[in-house]
Amino acid sequence: MKLTILGCYAATPRTFTNPTAQVLEIKNRLFLIDCGEGTQVQLRKNKIKFSKINHVFISHLHGDHFFGLIGLISTFSLLGRTTDLHVHGPKGIKEISLLQLKLSNSYTNYNLYFHELESLESEIIFEDDKVIVKTIPLQHRVYTNGFLFEEKIESRKLNLSIVERYGIEKCYYQNIKNGKDITLDSGEVVSNDKLTFDPDPTMQYAFCSDTRYNEAILPIIEGVDVLYHEATFLESEKALAQKTMHSTAIEAATIAKKANVKKLILGHYSTRYESIDLFQKEAKTVFDNVVLGDDGKQFEF
Amino acid sequence: MKLTILGCYAATPRTFTNPTAQVLEIKNRLFLIDCGEGTQVQLRKNKIKFSKINHVFISHLHGDHFFGLIGLISTFSLLGRTTDLHVHGPKGIKEISLLQLKLSNSYTNYNLYFHELESLESEIIFEDDKVIVKTIPLQHRVYTNGFLFEEKIESRKLNLSIVERYGIEKCYYQNIKNGKDITLDSGEVVSNDKLTFDPDPTMQYAFCSDTRYNEAILPIIEGVDVLYHEATFLESEKALAQKTMHSTAIEAATIAKKANVKKLILGHYSTRYESIDLFQKEAKTVFDNVVLGDDGKQFEF
Repeated sequence: MKLTILGCYAATPRTFTNPTAQVLEIKNRLFLIDCGEGTQVQLRKNKIKFSKINHVFISHLHGDHFFGLIGLISTFSLLGRTTDLHVHGPKGIKEISLLQLKLSNSYTNYNLYFHELESLESEIIFEDDKVIVKTIPLQHRVYTNGFLFEEKIESRKLNLSIVERYGIEKCYYQNIKNGKDITLDSGEVVSNDKLTFDPDPTMQYAFCSDTRYNEAILPIIEGVDVLYHEATFLESEKALAQKTMHSTAIEAATIAKKANVKKLILGHYSTRYESIDLFQKEAKTVFDNVVLGDDGKQFEF
Repeated sequence: MKLTILGCYAATPRTFTNPTAQVLEIKNRLFLIDCGEGTQVQLRKNKIKFSKINHVFISHLHGDHFFGLIGLISTFSLLGRTTDLHVHGPKGIKEISLLQLKLSNSYTNYNLYFHELESLESEIIFEDDKVIVKTIPLQHRVYTNGFLFEEKIESRKLNLSIVERYGIEKCYYQNIKNGKDITLDSGEVVSNDKLTFDPDPTMQYAFCSDTRYNEAILPIIEGVDVLYHEATFLESEKALAQKTMHSTAIEAATIAKKANVKKLILGHYSTRYESIDLFQKEAKTVFDNVVLGDDGKQFEF
């Protein structure tokens, strides 16, 4: 997976910081997660191929997470897009988008599908042969979901030199990849583990923003490779975090620790602080493998 | 007047070009004209005091002229604005804005007034003691207005040394400024032109974007000091200009010439051209005093 953070600052776009948007690449698929104002320019600056984005996931309907969506939808039209675009987000996202397209008399020349979310339970919202996406119900001032991206386990890999040494015909290869043992003409049974290698390990990425500290998400994100968790405030603003239903860096780290994730990326920083280094410092007192998200940063895992 | 061009390129925001937005300062009032995506960041980059903008004028509901409005409205809230904000724009601008505020559960903590426009005739839409703003009905693919900003003629200026030499009491000063002659105690009548200087000349600025070539606007913009007129295309794309109801540089210059304006600023360039210099070159074949608008450029007049 390759994660590009386009923006990870709270509240308003500023000269040098952008509101929330990320692109996650999994096996040549590009998923856009949130779409604050200016996202399309951030996509250009980070040289990401617009046209490959077919699915957009919107966590919640606060402006810093979706005000860039209608511009992106329009720009896709102007660029002559013909591929379907799917937008997954809270109920209301369709009405907002269609009203703007209607009033500007600018319906898209591609198919635009809205998948509106209302459930308070985790649910599968996208699945193909390689990837599965589930919601992570969060607790914020409005209806909010995080998103869990999971690579599907691939079939086992043929150990071709061994398979050929046994003289096994090609028509059995798929069975072997699916884990079956093979009975040779001689009657000898060759166990699958001799004929195959383990598949590549699958990765999981969990995006959790915006949310107050919420242990209810722990079973959903248990053991994921990478967790992005909002950390809007430092411990000195803990009361403000509670009031606004955001998290502190230490709370994000506590979630990461309790969920046994491998790596934590912080983001959604309030711009009141002079440096974001303090977020990492505070989080490290609880959970060691924590890194700072920042606009334009890429992570491969 | 001081005009700051925040963005003047057509269609989509790009890495180095911004969609339409301008700030016009007249006698310490700031008027925002159009508000494409990214306008609030452009305001910051150009160091314009957000809080002094009390009136926003939206020409039409194409995304490159208003997708930044809801973000600006929201940011005003986050910055703790308490002053009234007035938005003047086509019918529909209120519904779009309020729907987004409702769904994000983020109503403003200041009074937000929408003045929706539907008239096909020029009308006065703002007036105070110093400034008057009128619509300029334009012809585009959706309902569109340009805006004419006029300084009001100030009262005449006292020629204080002469007034005092005649021994005229202060209670008559306002009458003199208003143009009245004065009868002295001796019965002598002193004509007003001896007691006063002419007021400073007033300036007029006309903003016309987006529009096809339309001579119907000539009487409204006759003789203005500065005309900003869209020039989306060069002459080589004249057919495309007609089809999309935009203007070419030569058409903008022809309007400027026929309206006897003093200066023409071009803008709303299609990003298909490598350099915008050609717009000026083509326009100059028709009208000499033409300059190129560009993002971040300021004009004082």
